[in-house]
Amino acid sequence: MKILVINSGSSSIKFKLYEMSSAEEGEVLASGLAERIGEDTSTLTYKRHEKDGSETKQTWNDPLPNHETGLKRIIKALSDPEKGVISSPDEIAAAGHRVLHAGEAFSAPTKVNDAVIDAIKKCIPLGPLHNPANLDGILVASQIMQGASQVAVFDTAFHQTMPPEAYLYALPYELYKEQGVRRYGFHGTSHKYVARVTAKLAGVPQDQSNIITAHLGNGSSMAAVRNGRCVDTSMGLTPLPGLIMGTRTGDIDPAIIFYLGKQLGLSLEELDNLVNKQSGLKGICGHNDLRDVHTAAEEGEERAKLALSMLAYRNKKFFGAYIAALGRVDAIAFTAGVGENDSWVRAQSLADMEHLGVVIDLERNDGRCSEPTLISADSSTIQVWVVPTDEEYEIARETYEVLS
Amino acid sequence: MKILVINSGSSSIKFKLYEMSSAEEGEVLASGLAERIGEDTSTLTYKRHEKDGSETKQTWNDPLPNHETGLKRIIKALSDPEKGVISSPDEIAAAGHRVLHAGEAFSAPTKVNDAVIDAIKKCIPLGPLHNPANLDGILVASQIMQGASQVAVFDTAFHQTMPPEAYLYALPYELYKEQGVRRYGFHGTSHKYVARVTAKLAGVPQDQSNIITAHLGNGSSMAAVRNGRCVDTSMGLTPLPGLIMGTRTGDIDPAIIFYLGKQLGLSLEELDNLVNKQSGLKGICGHNDLRDVHTAAEEGEERAKLALSMLAYRNKKFFGAYIAALGRVDAIAFTAGVGENDSWVRAQSLADMEHLGVVIDLERNDGRCSEPTLISADSSTIQVWVVPTDEEYEIARETYEVLS
Repeated sequence: MKILVINSGSSSIKFKLYEMSSAEEGEVLASGLAERIGEDTSTLTYKRHEKDGSETKQTWNDPLPNHETGLKRIIKALSDPEKGVISSPDEIAAAGHRVLHAGEAFSAPTKVNDAVIDAIKKCIPLGPLHNPANLDGILVASQIMQGASQVAVFDTAFHQTMPPEAYLYALPYELYKEQGVRRYGFHGTSHKYVARVTAKLAGVPQDQSNIITAHLGNGSSMAAVRNGRCVDTSMGLTPLPGLIMGTRTGDIDPAIIFYLGKQLGLSLEELDNLVNKQSGLKGICGHNDLRDVHTAAEEGEERAKLALSMLAYRNKKFFGAYIAALGRVDAIAFTAGVGENDSWVRAQSLADMEHLGVVIDLERNDGRCSEPTLISADSSTIQVWVVPTDEEYEIARETYEVLS
Repeated sequence: MKILVINSGSSSIKFKLYEMSSAEEGEVLASGLAERIGEDTSTLTYKRHEKDGSETKQTWNDPLPNHETGLKRIIKALSDPEKGVISSPDEIAAAGHRVLHAGEAFSAPTKVNDAVIDAIKKCIPLGPLHNPANLDGILVASQIMQGASQVAVFDTAFHQTMPPEAYLYALPYELYKEQGVRRYGFHGTSHKYVARVTAKLAGVPQDQSNIITAHLGNGSSMAAVRNGRCVDTSMGLTPLPGLIMGTRTGDIDPAIIFYLGKQLGLSLEELDNLVNKQSGLKGICGHNDLRDVHTAAEEGEERAKLALSMLAYRNKKFFGAYIAALGRVDAIAFTAGVGENDSWVRAQSLADMEHLGVVIDLERNDGRCSEPTLISADSSTIQVWVVPTDEEYEIARETYEVLS
């Protein structure tokens, strides 16, 4: 079954075409990105994935005034007689759409219908940057790919199993009921994929697996998974809180907002921009990419060293909190850009935690990991893995399951 | 040496007169409260502590238009020929003043001088409710008690040993340098007292003791203490973040403030009031006193049950975080109103933590504790104690040490 995974952004469409032979097996046929949609310089980058593992790349520079022309261009590329991978668009059985926010409406991937569209619309205030673009992708695909099923896969869905003591804030209860103020969590598709793969690697049945997944990238979050179900996560109503990120603060004293508002006369919009875009690693040391922070630290920049130890210390506290919350932990898994590639962050975030059953093997931990890799010592009660994430594959897999 | 401990509030002066025979031994001679200062109904409640452990109580209703008349009235009561405990005000060697906020200026109690007064003034934006009243008490006492030394004991001092990765926020670094935005922590005098007593109880030299102190009251905070020095604490720039409290949220996604500002059109002042005064237990279930929450939960109120499990779960995550941060923990200590008296909160906050070395003995934990009480099982690697706090004694003790 051919499934087209679509991640529709405000001026881009990211895609990947899978041939799924079962829920457990899928092969990428082609992938790519239509970007700068609506601008003069719009481009489609298209890669055909060859049988031998190589990729054939092709770029088109046709104007793409909107998402409709963008998706049409993608389908034209996929079915191009020479460069394409399908002989007719009708071969695509389904499109699996990444959708940021479904609030409490959906806890599983769902075939698109009016209720799904309503839920995505209703959640626009919660995901003002992503939900409108995600919806755009769905509406355009429904129109262009009339023979294909449309499935929405929500970034918040995996976290919907959290118990109330984890998802509620100690705010007036009506703000939850009337305004939807609660912890939703994000990166759900990645946490779900990594937790499932890690359970398998650790040799624990998924529905009995207790796992902490650390998705560390430019945006970062952790999830605590008990018996295969998410019971807590570090992001909240929005992707701001929790861990220290590229430009986001993670947890801070919320009253800092009032203090800065008063002392500096900043507006809510300016304060929002400050904590989301000017903070995190960038705020501490000027570099938002962790690779640059490492380079700067090696060159002796004190603030870069500080940023590194702050980030690792924050991670460590979250690991401790989730180990306490879970009661028993089978494995910890690192994933995403930083989690897969930054051995320093992995080692420091779990340093000196022998008393909690965590011992990293520094040799096993050394270097980047493009394959699942065990990085804990044999003496570690809790296994520690690096598991490269694959959100697109997970979306294809879940789309397949919805249709099966 | 007679030391008068003074806690000066905006319309009250709380006091306790100690006879300190050494830094380790002190006896309370008298205590009391001047309240509603500046109102028509001002009152001085005065208690003489008798040798047999009983108290003789006396109330005066003279008008107390300001802090000066208030403190004069207190000294008059203390030296009253019939009800008093001293024959002349000159017997008081020193006044020890509780001061909320000294920013980064002082990490230890200090004899009052111009630098101390400047630091307290400079920190008024950080402690707008307390610092002006604390300063008032110091200025009035300096004037009235000219023969006595004046010592300031800061609530933030104990936390000044935190390392930068614990006290800095992932905000633009200039906000720390220019605006003093960092984690300060509060309840320092209580955490310091309890950590010291707990080290002794656990039989560990104080300078090698790793202890987590949980000051749980209407306001609540935890501190992680390594080798007798504070290395982290749950409150921050202000007393808002961290644990769930009577009316304060503790940690929330800071972006909730932006969301509610936008959705409900609330101002920064209204939002400040919301998270500090209308939230916490009160926000979740309508009761801000934990005793009332228990009663309501026993009567079947679902929201009260929810508030209890949220509070215990938040505590548990902080215990886990600090166990991870400390690397080795000798003891955990509960203190303050809730910590000393609420066996349910103690047991639930540390439930199912055997894998972290914590086992509560439910029988030992049963009931209120007016004396230091071991509540962990003998099998618990980490000892768990209830240690009644005594901030006034700690202020008297520190004042004694400054003068010795």
